[in-house]
Amino acid sequence: MSAIPKNIEKTIEEFSKLPGIGQKSAERLTFYLLRKKTEDVERFGHVLKGLKEGLVYCQNCQNLSTKETCEICEDLNRDSSVICVVEEMLDLLALEKANEYKGHYHVLHGVISPIEGVGPDELKIAELVERVKKGGITEIILALNPSIEGEATSAYILRYIKPLENIKITRIARGIPIGGDLEYADRQTLKRAFEGRVEY
Amino acid sequence: MSAIPKNIEKTIEEFSKLPGIGQKSAERLTFYLLRKKTEDVERFGHVLKGLKEGLVYCQNCQNLSTKETCEICEDLNRDSSVICVVEEMLDLLALEKANEYKGHYHVLHGVISPIEGVGPDELKIAELVERVKKGGITEIILALNPSIEGEATSAYILRYIKPLENIKITRIARGIPIGGDLEYADRQTLKRAFEGRVEY
Repeated sequence: MSAIPKNIEKTIEEFSKLPGIGQKSAERLTFYLLRKKTEDVERFGHVLKGLKEGLVYCQNCQNLSTKETCEICEDLNRDSSVICVVEEMLDLLALEKANEYKGHYHVLHGVISPIEGVGPDELKIAELVERVKKGGITEIILALNPSIEGEATSAYILRYIKPLENIKITRIARGIPIGGDLEYADRQTLKRAFEGRVEY
Repeated sequence: MSAIPKNIEKTIEEFSKLPGIGQKSAERLTFYLLRKKTEDVERFGHVLKGLKEGLVYCQNCQNLSTKETCEICEDLNRDSSVICVVEEMLDLLALEKANEYKGHYHVLHGVISPIEGVGPDELKIAELVERVKKGGITEIILALNPSIEGEATSAYILRYIKPLENIKITRIARGIPIGGDLEYADRQTLKRAFEGRVEY
């Protein structure tokens, strides 16, 4: 549209490409930024431009890092004999925030999904198997999402690591979330909650 | 958090400053971009950085433009004797998309809001009065939002332009929106719809 300067139009376009942000929201965000100080907007642009700069996969856990070995893997206070396998770095962050787990991670960067054309080779599964084979691992915790793809990926990984001896393989518990409501829990969750019931 | 590279942390922070985007959404958007091609992310950053570059207020209608006089004001096919007063440029864009109005605009860049510390002097009201006094205007259409602030701002503007002779002053109609449902309309809207009823 001719009524709108190119800069504004392009910014709206870029915002509207983001997931969950439609045309209207993109316009609102852009005009919100237009009302902000120029330096604030420029800083945002600058930060965004450099987002992927210098990022590499940690050679150990495949977490995104600015160093060859990420800070978690380098932390000597953490137990390097336990590996928690997660789908995405976001899951790792969520677990870190819970501040419960003090071992190492392995980030797969996705799940096996034939519909989206993602096979095991697109994921960091070979790296995991390699890492486990090197030895020194006592437990592997599978912390993938309880979705069909997550389950399939867990099953795929199990096939490779189960035969390895002396390694305990676990998965995180499924059940009613804390603060959740039995009444609103779906059937699958309730089923899993019963199956996984614990004796007092 | 040490687990997360600075670039990523900063991007999440910038996204979470945007209206309607919380911490979780900011994380999701950032990790969505991390999965995109570097060039795509860099382009977004570049576009954002230059968002406010070279933008000025149109000397005529106060619309944001890259030129002293915006394209709408320069368009000789539009009726320069009619001014439609809007709060924000987003409103102008919405009206332009409706493709109904073919006159000029005047963008106030806000509404009078004592709570938010916005007085008439923060808005482009003086510029409007100045513009009208110059002459050549036959009609002023007030197209502010039907909110308390919008009404107050309209009333304030009226005080200044009502005394000027030979200018028709109108406001856009209020009523049930097209596709809207009487059943779900609020009382004020219904009241206005009755007051503004039109004879067949």
